[in-house]
Amino acid sequence: MSFTVFKGTPSGAIKQSSSKKRPLSGDEVLIKVSHSGVCGTDVHYKSADIVLGHEGVGYIEETGPAVQTLKKGDRVGWGYEHDCCGRCAHCLSGWETFCPERKMYGLADTDQGSFAQFAVWREAFVFPIPDALDNEAAAPLMCGGSTVYNALVVADVKPGAVVGIVGIGGLGHLAIQFANKMGCRVVVFSGTDSKKEEAMKLGAHEFHATKGAKELKTDHKLNHLIVTTSALPDWSLYLNVLDSRATISPLTVSDKPFSFPHQEMVVRGLRVQGGIVGSRLVHRNMLDFAAFHGIKPMTVQFPMTEQGIQDCFEALEGGSMRYRGVLAVQ
Amino acid sequence: MSFTVFKGTPSGAIKQSSSKKRPLSGDEVLIKVSHSGVCGTDVHYKSADIVLGHEGVGYIEETGPAVQTLKKGDRVGWGYEHDCCGRCAHCLSGWETFCPERKMYGLADTDQGSFAQFAVWREAFVFPIPDALDNEAAAPLMCGGSTVYNALVVADVKPGAVVGIVGIGGLGHLAIQFANKMGCRVVVFSGTDSKKEEAMKLGAHEFHATKGAKELKTDHKLNHLIVTTSALPDWSLYLNVLDSRATISPLTVSDKPFSFPHQEMVVRGLRVQGGIVGSRLVHRNMLDFAAFHGIKPMTVQFPMTEQGIQDCFEALEGGSMRYRGVLAVQ
Repeated sequence: MSFTVFKGTPSGAIKQSSSKKRPLSGDEVLIKVSHSGVCGTDVHYKSADIVLGHEGVGYIEETGPAVQTLKKGDRVGWGYEHDCCGRCAHCLSGWETFCPERKMYGLADTDQGSFAQFAVWREAFVFPIPDALDNEAAAPLMCGGSTVYNALVVADVKPGAVVGIVGIGGLGHLAIQFANKMGCRVVVFSGTDSKKEEAMKLGAHEFHATKGAKELKTDHKLNHLIVTTSALPDWSLYLNVLDSRATISPLTVSDKPFSFPHQEMVVRGLRVQGGIVGSRLVHRNMLDFAAFHGIKPMTVQFPMTEQGIQDCFEALEGGSMRYRGVLAVQ
Repeated sequence: MSFTVFKGTPSGAIKQSSSKKRPLSGDEVLIKVSHSGVCGTDVHYKSADIVLGHEGVGYIEETGPAVQTLKKGDRVGWGYEHDCCGRCAHCLSGWETFCPERKMYGLADTDQGSFAQFAVWREAFVFPIPDALDNEAAAPLMCGGSTVYNALVVADVKPGAVVGIVGIGGLGHLAIQFANKMGCRVVVFSGTDSKKEEAMKLGAHEFHATKGAKELKTDHKLNHLIVTTSALPDWSLYLNVLDSRATISPLTVSDKPFSFPHQEMVVRGLRVQGGIVGSRLVHRNMLDFAAFHGIKPMTVQFPMTEQGIQDCFEALEGGSMRYRGVLAVQ
């Protein structure tokens, strides 16, 4: 069987290609993709000769010899991590996302991806989708949702805490919903007022436009700050609204150094917490939480074609996406 | 009653002065100072017209009308914080060190200090000294000891963890002992090998000289890094020896920004944790822990005179102190 996949090329143009199904071994499953979320990392890899996409959702088509629970027709998704060693301290403590032998999107198994009709992954890294989430809604949760939910978990966010969220995009608009349903006061910061109404509808309790602001003032000091913008913010703007002992979770992908007023961090006991997607347990809890609370991404659908992917990338890079592009297999 | 105090002056020279005892109110106690530790912050304030010193140890001389447990002759010490509001979320959760109305050395009650024959403080902020600690040993624990112990507590250091300690000085030589007695593997980083032997005696299990090093390599990856140097280190040197999800606790006092390789922090889930001295509970636990395990600072005694203080400051600033200067009241 051969099937369609979409790869990056040196020019950055997306190219349709064909892949051949290989026999399944161990606990591998063959997934027939129906939808794929589109993430900033996909844009990052558009010049790489790899099958793109890591927010895949679809149906089990075939199961390998050691598969234990999944069966043909099951609705499943997968995300950034595909495999781990299972033996190291990180794996054994449920943080396989930090396994030194972890296999991640773009770095391993680059012949598989979610911009494709099919993909093969280990059952152990595939997540059943709760009934309350349809495929289009589930796809962006596989990386974007997992990343912001994990940030809230790792920061040890408690109900009633004041959670600041910087940026309303693919990640931020999910973070608002998660934090709201966790019982938190949600304070949103965005460049302008243009997304204010939507932010409030998504669950923000307070909104602040930051462009040109010399000083911020919030009703309550923030216990947590989740930063989802594509560039790191001017931290000095936020010092005034952070409570002492606040956590700061910069999810931004940036080659620039993280530069923060040092004495403020020390004297006020601030904590800066790095983090990526959730481990499998966090990821599974995130899907349950989203299903239980009706948390869904706002999506814009594109066809999974060369043109559709390129249009989606353009919307994402141009900043017009509200808020997550999803490719639908044609 | 009038008594001797030592103050900073604009020239930086230490000046002996005289202070008058005022009547005690509320839960205030009058402490007859026997020893005072000398900390970098004291040097920082040497040009300020304040009574210096915040690592005081001595004996209760007199008690105010609302004092509940302390009595004349009790051996006590005090540190950086003197008072708090008692009502805010930080106070009520046992983190009064972050109370917005906290009273700290150099910023409040500047007519009182430990470079003095006597000092008046609230009973609630005074710590009984365990029998196993003599006054000279207890003094440097009141700020230096409290700060490093707190860093280990806030970083949630567990027995068996690999704890890196950067710098062997007033703080570092205590951090080595605390981490060792917490059951950790202790990996010490110092500029040269000159303090290696002492570090191993204090409880280090591994030692690395960093000056001129292009790359560090440790037997085990570090779960924690406690930075006690007077300047922030070149973080890139330590990336290789940090495990994923490691905590970094920079205790350095620096006006320079904290600048760290951002993507490494994010992708490896590193946590940077600011912190100051311990809260009262942490401070009390620290004294118990030190007494129980025989943890003591290595001290150099100076007389509490203008000349003695100046000699002590010079040794501290010149980098020759091994490892904590203590002034003894004459």
